[in-house]
Amino acid sequence: PPGRKVLIVYAHQEPKSLNGSLKRVAVEELSKQGCSVTVSDLYAMQFEPRATRNDVVGCVYNSEEFDYGVETWEAYKRGSLSNDLIEEQKKVQEADLLIFQFPLYWFSMPAIMKGWMDRVLVQGFAHNFPNCYDSGLLKNKLALFSFTTGGSREMYAKGGISGDIRYLLWPMQHGIMHFCGVKVLAPHICFAPEYVSEEKRKEMLTAWAQRLKTLWKEEPINCSPEWYFD
Amino acid sequence: PPGRKVLIVYAHQEPKSLNGSLKRVAVEELSKQGCSVTVSDLYAMQFEPRATRNDVVGCVYNSEEFDYGVETWEAYKRGSLSNDLIEEQKKVQEADLLIFQFPLYWFSMPAIMKGWMDRVLVQGFAHNFPNCYDSGLLKNKLALFSFTTGGSREMYAKGGISGDIRYLLWPMQHGIMHFCGVKVLAPHICFAPEYVSEEKRKEMLTAWAQRLKTLWKEEPINCSPEWYFD
Repeated sequence: PPGRKVLIVYAHQEPKSLNGSLKRVAVEELSKQGCSVTVSDLYAMQFEPRATRNDVVGCVYNSEEFDYGVETWEAYKRGSLSNDLIEEQKKVQEADLLIFQFPLYWFSMPAIMKGWMDRVLVQGFAHNFPNCYDSGLLKNKLALFSFTTGGSREMYAKGGISGDIRYLLWPMQHGIMHFCGVKVLAPHICFAPEYVSEEKRKEMLTAWAQRLKTLWKEEPINCSPEWYFD
Repeated sequence: PPGRKVLIVYAHQEPKSLNGSLKRVAVEELSKQGCSVTVSDLYAMQFEPRATRNDVVGCVYNSEEFDYGVETWEAYKRGSLSNDLIEEQKKVQEADLLIFQFPLYWFSMPAIMKGWMDRVLVQGFAHNFPNCYDSGLLKNKLALFSFTTGGSREMYAKGGISGDIRYLLWPMQHGIMHFCGVKVLAPHICFAPEYVSEEKRKEMLTAWAQRLKTLWKEEPINCSPEWYFD
């Protein structure tokens, strides 16, 4: 709906890829709805995935022993996180919906996107114990993981060799998004696009556009162990 | 035992950290046993986590559309992967045991270590469908995930707010190591070391040294859904 803000965090090296197309489809469809859409194109930005001393501008809190979690928490409070992190946090803060678009790498997101999670979702900003899970600091936001796989739907079925695809969603949806208070919409998964016809890939794009038309009416999943493992 | 080769892939910024100490303890104990131990100290190496065109030296296989999986597979066959990857692959190839030592970040490994997985475990080297899982190309090797957590043992219990710790081991142990044919030893987990006394932390180091003394007699876990979710 008009006025809603969406941040798409996108991790693919190739604009011509299916991931690139899925991202474009989302920008187009959501813009058409009157949403304001921002994209963090991580590879294009050469986004830094490594959590280091460089994320704190100026002096560290404890110069004897470097603890990344403590240092970035303190730096957040002082306003002395590095600029790239402040920029990403602003985008997150403004967004009603976060869409993560990526190819599945090793049952998870690519390292460049994991680095975005590691570095942007700083204590004080995204969570602050006991403000986690349902009382996480990013509550009232939605997240959606949209990804492509190498393995087929059969491999990722219960009883398939790679196990139910939901098993691998636990760390990303529950461990990251739910931990920060974000409500999670059902994932959007394109299975094994490299092994299907061009026509099938086009259908995948159409299905995504179609889903986005009614996305704002969707109810979040019940992000508890039952959804993943029962 | 004398002659066994161990690769420790280590991801912590601070040598004085508990992770740093756990790494040193492992180097000392395993060396004492006559093992030859190699450490990949990822932050010290400024290891590149991003999967990009730069991982292929010279021309790409398909200059129209960049597909990281295909390009690195082809480059592996041609011997034209970037030098940092060739170096890591040599270490893996020679190792009987891989130890991953890291602080848990967001229910998973830090991005710098995820990048090691994404970039080093190339198709053709670590797996080559249908050579995956029990027939993965790194069979006859062992892996062990050794990590520290922020959350307590109670939070990571079945029924705890963060769920059974085994849930989050699935992508790392099954999705990566088992996929490559590597057998997985039970994880070594130090819960919430930042919230315990100095004495307790020393006990954690002693317990690790103790376990390493009989590590070679351990049986791998049965890396199937039952181990993780039952």
